[in-house]
Amino acid sequence: MSTGELVGFKSYRARIEVKLKSGYLDPEGETSRKALVDLRYKVNRVGTAKVYEIDLQAPSLEEAKRQVDEMCMRLLANPVKDDYAFEVKEMK
Amino acid sequence: MSTGELVGFKSYRARIEVKLKSGYLDPEGETSRKALVDLRYKVNRVGTAKVYEIDLQAPSLEEAKRQVDEMCMRLLANPVKDDYAFEVKEMK
Repeated sequence: MSTGELVGFKSYRARIEVKLKSGYLDPEGETSRKALVDLRYKVNRVGTAKVYEIDLQAPSLEEAKRQVDEMCMRLLANPVKDDYAFEVKEMK
Repeated sequence: MSTGELVGFKSYRARIEVKLKSGYLDPEGETSRKALVDLRYKVNRVGTAKVYEIDLQAPSLEEAKRQVDEMCMRLLANPVKDDYAFEVKEMK
């Protein structure tokens, strides 16, 4: 058992990507686009997204996925303006 | 030719991921970790990264990749503290 692992729990790594729903203005992306155009690049659009890589412990993969979905809804994504997607895998 | 496309240029989409080099403290990830632990999740670590999706025009895939690498070094990533990776594909 690796250090800090709870009895009956396994270690999982989740990768979550959070981005604005289509139709929402992305001011950070737009600012980057303008800066790149100023640097003479032919850039039409810049969109941004945030990635969270989370190491967590859970009793099963299904439970880990359920928890990660809940984390997105409760904390990491704003359900009004954000879309999110994630994948979870067991760690060796 | 699609609207706004330059003669002799093709449209490409780049996906760039920028994250802190290993060893650098990630305060945003650490703040998220503490918040998730407060919500009773068994979270050991949270790392964050930024994704840029860039639509650009360039004469060739090789030139598009060269420009995107240059954009990372000049604007999007901090070479002292960030690692970055990207992929570029031609758009239909």
